[in-house]
Amino acid sequence: MFSAKIKVTLRKSILDPQGKAVEHSIQSMGFSSIADTRIGKFIELKIDTSSEEEARLVTDEICRKLLANPVMEDYSFDISKMNGEKN
Amino acid sequence: MFSAKIKVTLRKSILDPQGKAVEHSIQSMGFSSIADTRIGKFIELKIDTSSEEEARLVTDEICRKLLANPVMEDYSFDISKMNGEKN
Repeated sequence: MFSAKIKVTLRKSILDPQGKAVEHSIQSMGFSSIADTRIGKFIELKIDTSSEEEARLVTDEICRKLLANPVMEDYSFDISKMNGEKN
Repeated sequence: MFSAKIKVTLRKSILDPQGKAVEHSIQSMGFSSIADTRIGKFIELKIDTSSEEEARLVTDEICRKLLANPVMEDYSFDISKMNGEKN
């Protein structure tokens, strides 16, 4: 059993109005040192397989086909073996 | 200048209907080995300070006061020094 932690972020060239709104809120709280705030998605899932290579391939396919919009978004992920498992 | 990468996730005890919907989509694509899908937010921001300790304190305060709902959500973050900076 593996755990995948996936980050989906807007590409740098794409405007991020949600990030801008959050940045304004942060600055209005008095933190003037904050810049370049960007908001993305974080997805966690478990993959029931004994092969890390297969877990990686499955996660990549799920990101490409479902979780990320390839025109506007980039994704990255970490795969880790879950504790308490022997396979 | 430091970069903070923040993850805000629903607490384990809170139902995540968005995660369930994504999980059903993944399974209907043929990936039956996927379970426990949960969706959170990923926030990146830059902090203009020369002290890692200050960057950490500022980020923690922003998470507590603005980014995470302390009743329903947990947060974690990594602080890293940005390349090309000497301070």
